[in-house]
Amino acid sequence: MIQFQCDYNEGCAPEILKRLAETNLEQNEGYGMDAHCNHARQLILQACKLTAQKADVHFLVGGTQANATVISSILKAHQGVVAAHTGHIAVHETGAIEHSGHKVIALHAHNGLITAQQVRQVLHSHFSQDEPEHMVQPGMVYISYPSEYGTLYSRQELLDIRKVCSDYQIPLFVDGARLGYGLASYQSDITLPQLAHIADVFYIGGTKQGALFGEAIVITNDAFKRDFRYHIKQGGGMLAKGRLLGIQFEELMQNDLYLRLARHANEQALRIRDALIRKGYPQAVPSPTNQQFFTLPNDHIQRLQQQFIISVWEPVDDSHTTVRFCTSWATQPHNVELLIQAIERL
Amino acid sequence: MIQFQCDYNEGCAPEILKRLAETNLEQNEGYGMDAHCNHARQLILQACKLTAQKADVHFLVGGTQANATVISSILKAHQGVVAAHTGHIAVHETGAIEHSGHKVIALHAHNGLITAQQVRQVLHSHFSQDEPEHMVQPGMVYISYPSEYGTLYSRQELLDIRKVCSDYQIPLFVDGARLGYGLASYQSDITLPQLAHIADVFYIGGTKQGALFGEAIVITNDAFKRDFRYHIKQGGGMLAKGRLLGIQFEELMQNDLYLRLARHANEQALRIRDALIRKGYPQAVPSPTNQQFFTLPNDHIQRLQQQFIISVWEPVDDSHTTVRFCTSWATQPHNVELLIQAIERL
Amino acid sequence: MIQFQCDYNEGCAPEILKRLAETNLEQNEGYGMDAHCNHARQLILQACKLTAQKADVHFLVGGTQANATVISSILKAHQGVVAAHTGHIAVHETGAIEHSGHKVIALHAHNGLITAQQVRQVLHSHFSQDEPEHMVQPGMVYISYPSEYGTLYSRQELLDIRKVCSDYQIPLFVDGARLGYGLASYQSDITLPQLAHIADVFYIGGTKQGALFGEAIVITNDAFKRDFRYHIKQGGGMLAKGRLLGIQFEELMQNDLYLRLARHANEQALRIRDALIRKGYPQAVPSPTNQQFFTLPNDHIQRLQQQFIISVWEPVDDSHTTVRFCTSWATQPHNVELLIQAIERL
Amino acid sequence: MIQFQCDYNEGCAPEILKRLAETNLEQNEGYGMDAHCNHARQLILQACKLTAQKADVHFLVGGTQANATVISSILKAHQGVVAAHTGHIAVHETGAIEHSGHKVIALHAHNGLITAQQVRQVLHSHFSQDEPEHMVQPGMVYISYPSEYGTLYSRQELLDIRKVCSDYQIPLFVDGARLGYGLASYQSDITLPQLAHIADVFYIGGTKQGALFGEAIVITNDAFKRDFRYHIKQGGGMLAKGRLLGIQFEELMQNDLYLRLARHANEQALRIRDALIRKGYPQAVPSPTNQQFFTLPNDHIQRLQQQFIISVWEPVDDSHTTVRFCTSWATQPHNVELLIQAIERL
Repeated sequence: MIQFQCDYNEGCAPEILKRLAETNLEQNEGYGMDAHCNHARQLILQACKLTAQKADVHFLVGGTQANATVISSILKAHQGVVAAHTGHIAVHETGAIEHSGHKVIALHAHNGLITAQQVRQVLHSHFSQDEPEHMVQPGMVYISYPSEYGTLYSRQELLDIRKVCSDYQIPLFVDGARLGYGLASYQSDITLPQLAHIADVFYIGGTKQGALFGEAIVITNDAFKRDFRYHIKQGGGMLAKGRLLGIQFEELMQNDLYLRLARHANEQALRIRDALIRKGYPQAVPSPTNQQFFTLPNDHIQRLQQQFIISVWEPVDDSHTTVRFCTSWATQPHNVELLIQAIERL
Repeated sequence: MIQFQCDYNEGCAPEILKRLAETNLEQNEGYGMDAHCNHARQLILQACKLTAQKADVHFLVGGTQANATVISSILKAHQGVVAAHTGHIAVHETGAIEHSGHKVIALHAHNGLITAQQVRQVLHSHFSQDEPEHMVQPGMVYISYPSEYGTLYSRQELLDIRKVCSDYQIPLFVDGARLGYGLASYQSDITLPQLAHIADVFYIGGTKQGALFGEAIVITNDAFKRDFRYHIKQGGGMLAKGRLLGIQFEELMQNDLYLRLARHANEQALRIRDALIRKGYPQAVPSPTNQQFFTLPNDHIQRLQQQFIISVWEPVDDSHTTVRFCTSWATQPHNVELLIQAIERL
Repeated sequence: MIQFQCDYNEGCAPEILKRLAETNLEQNEGYGMDAHCNHARQLILQACKLTAQKADVHFLVGGTQANATVISSILKAHQGVVAAHTGHIAVHETGAIEHSGHKVIALHAHNGLITAQQVRQVLHSHFSQDEPEHMVQPGMVYISYPSEYGTLYSRQELLDIRKVCSDYQIPLFVDGARLGYGLASYQSDITLPQLAHIADVFYIGGTKQGALFGEAIVITNDAFKRDFRYHIKQGGGMLAKGRLLGIQFEELMQNDLYLRLARHANEQALRIRDALIRKGYPQAVPSPTNQQFFTLPNDHIQRLQQQFIISVWEPVDDSHTTVRFCTSWATQPHNVELLIQAIERL
Repeated sequence: MIQFQCDYNEGCAPEILKRLAETNLEQNEGYGMDAHCNHARQLILQACKLTAQKADVHFLVGGTQANATVISSILKAHQGVVAAHTGHIAVHETGAIEHSGHKVIALHAHNGLITAQQVRQVLHSHFSQDEPEHMVQPGMVYISYPSEYGTLYSRQELLDIRKVCSDYQIPLFVDGARLGYGLASYQSDITLPQLAHIADVFYIGGTKQGALFGEAIVITNDAFKRDFRYHIKQGGGMLAKGRLLGIQFEELMQNDLYLRLARHANEQALRIRDALIRKGYPQAVPSPTNQQFFTLPNDHIQRLQQQFIISVWEPVDDSHTTVRFCTSWATQPHNVELLIQAIERL
């Protein structure tokens, strides 16, 4: 069976594996204080066109952990986080945010995206009440770039959301678990330095982008830098052998590896997309990145499933279902070829 | 500088690295549902002489995460966990247990160990009160094997603590972050199957025992098996590429690798211990495992620190300090030789 | 200004005040263990046709506290509570449920009510997934009787929801902050003993029903009785002078006082409703209890506000707003007469 | 049986009850926004010699609630609160502080009191570490005045603790559940305005000082004023009929009632103390307030218990136990006379 199920089916980019082997017997400080982490921090700051005075960089193991740690470090007890109702923190983290005491204030998303107007409306509605204290106070805004449906905010949309956040003096946090796929997309009109300028906190996802695991959190707002390492440790995210994260991000951030891997995944995804469109299947979400959502007749899906593993997303009606085709840095072009042939045979 | 600072200064056992490379391009299910994890579960159950009906095995990334996840999954809101005041959860996890809503009920430990009598006393004291509901209810007992000071409970001591837990119908959780060093020690009178029989939940530590990272949680009490994967996910411990954990424990649990690495570390530690004793330095804690605590004159410590990194534990008086010498699976005998020579020169 | 703003504008029923004065210098045990509380427990059990073996009764100060305490006592860390999106816990408790670690899983309510079918759908959807552990597990169902919009479930609707809960083995919790107004309504087809039979836990609201404060929690499901007093204390709800709660519920539960006060409030509310309907204003919610929601032109509202305080609920369009008229045990008929005259003059 | 068991055995000062009756049918705003609360706020500020610009005043129902709400509103997720190991939050609140996510960092207290030196030591020890982030960060200091053993800090001792807090920029919170008994004691060398100047937050206890219930929180540090009402609501402490708290504190804060009631209680307690000392019983704690701790032979205690209810504190040896005699605003002198006679007969 060939898997197009998710972007974490394989191990990691060979460059990373090679470097892990080379450094294996080095003796390093623990907990992210080692030379590899420091070097990776430098490389990330350079890529963001930021100085070490301007931003702090931290490494965590995974996305749920990164989200819960950032949000718990920023919110006060009476505050919640505004997010798309399809946002990862709203749906797929088993209530990690609530577990740390905070409500996810869900806005109805369209194709995974929320608008500045929606955010302004919920903030205005809250703060203009007579007795707002009976409701959770919106304390930050969370968006994902790309969204959980592979879609992208335009730069202007991001600036508009930023503006609302600034008007209400609450921070904007960008979940970048698949950041590379977004930045590398033909539809993206934003660069990493621009994103770093817009967000108060964001992360550069490694797990779904060619690393074994790891997310690099960048904090640009001074108010949220202090004591962040306490929150990492408290949330169980401080890897003893922090070097593993440093080494991986050293490799990803050098030689354009991070975006190169993402471009590859996007290209393969678009090949699949084009084949499905040619065949006349409706695109469920207009995604320009490595996740492609299409609605297919159930018997067509079953035929594909004899050879391929894909994600069954949700039933549309009795005889049609939306499925996800997902590519990654590791997707082999010849497997895509096999998939396209199978699609054409449907 | 040669490091005797901790047991996570290096990467991992070469067997593991090799296997990671070999399997890198395999396509696997995510989140610990893959064939490697399943095989590793089998190997662990065999090592524990348990069947899959009797015990569940889960893999988490690190110790703080494992502790917080297990404890949060077991305790009800009004309950706390009984632990040594020197226990890892009481001191070195930035309040992860309290962050999940629970008090650590600390008992004064001697050399890192608590006694069955102490546990019985705190439970009796609580449940015999007229109005116990004004105090946190002890809901489980946490011990570490070996303790955070490298010391070991005897089998009888463990059985005695087990007896108290059974009498009060509360579970016993054993933190095995350094379990191998304990089981492999000349002083240990317990086997892995025996430990598995005594504890309701325990874990086999990988991070400090030759893996890149990873802890294998074994749950033998049916009451705590259900829904455990929800807790892992909620706590941020569900690694997307779960295969990494499976592969590592496959290697550790085969060919006696786990205990072999531990025995090596213990042997090197005892060489250091003997050199320090020969030189007349007082042993601060009588540890039979890979961590050795001695009290040295401050100027002697400074002389050692010109060549070696060791852990400064705590000042004893104005001119003496307790330090920790820590070995690992990766400790090189010739470095130990250099250290012993340096000690002899003091 | 005459207030029709809420049902807690005045103090308490004179019978209660008189009894508080008579007993003021009695010496009583603290924390709800006194003779008044015990007597009130008996009266409540009698009213519910329950024995002390079948149900436990506890007294708390207020509704938010009662909700948070019950829910925190029942749910495990990975579970959430299913509720109407308009439910008090979902909207008006400043995230008290999330503060204790749990998600409110909101269902879209119609006029404050949710259906058995909706509940079954969310439960089925969760438990039929392949990997449900990535989402919060629904652990209980919360409904309000009457709802926050004054509307009532029929007995059959309650039995249907009960059936779903039983099928999935999760408890049903009924928020009865305004229970009396519901039971006393002409539209209610349920009795207190019937409700007690349907719910696993519910409470009889005092604060909004003629007491100074106080909610009487009735737990009929054995699984949730144990250790409940710990949860009360932990949640800050264990009143030192528990007698105050006992005395109040002694009075409310005697001589039909509780329902008598509620009937009075309902009657006054229906007089207002009829006047508004006669005048042709659209009823926003078809409530048969003490809260009446109507949509009025904004200038009409302003004219009423010169003499009366009413609750502005939400804007409907640029020139119309929904307002709430609320009566209570203390509403004076001649004030209702004045309000009706003012409505007729609009 | 005559009760000297605690200071909440009776109802409330007659002045309060009378005023509750007089105002019963007034229509008031809910949630503490009414005229009575506002007036009570003024009276409290006057008593503290503070302006409304300088301090905020809030009313909560009880002490556990007040403590949990204040602490949860101030601490960030990674912080804990430093307290005496005998402090109310450390022992008798069923882990309410931990339930809200924070560790109580307990210092060994002597007679219920901790010293500035102890506080400085724990802060210095934390912040001077190389990697403090592995431990909970001390984020505030909590003391009780009087302590849970009835003892008092001198003004100088309070200033010294204040100094340490200022040096480390963390707030000082004073639990004043029995504040009046402290201020009214012959041993107190501090006034309410002086205390208000020293503490960042404190409260004036009502529940144990003649009110039916209620604690008045005074926040003098601007950093902790904002959004405090959200925290009250979230913690279940926002009484719907907030007027009840306003009215009670209006009465307590007028005509010297608060201190008058406290002086009475203290006088009666000292009469009991003197009788016990005359009889040669050892004083277990040198308390100058309404709680008196003495160690008596068990058979003497049993003889007293035939006529009186007193608190059994803790066994001292096989034949002796420490007991607490507690007086209140309501203690009747002739009952004290009966107790003294009984003591003399022992």
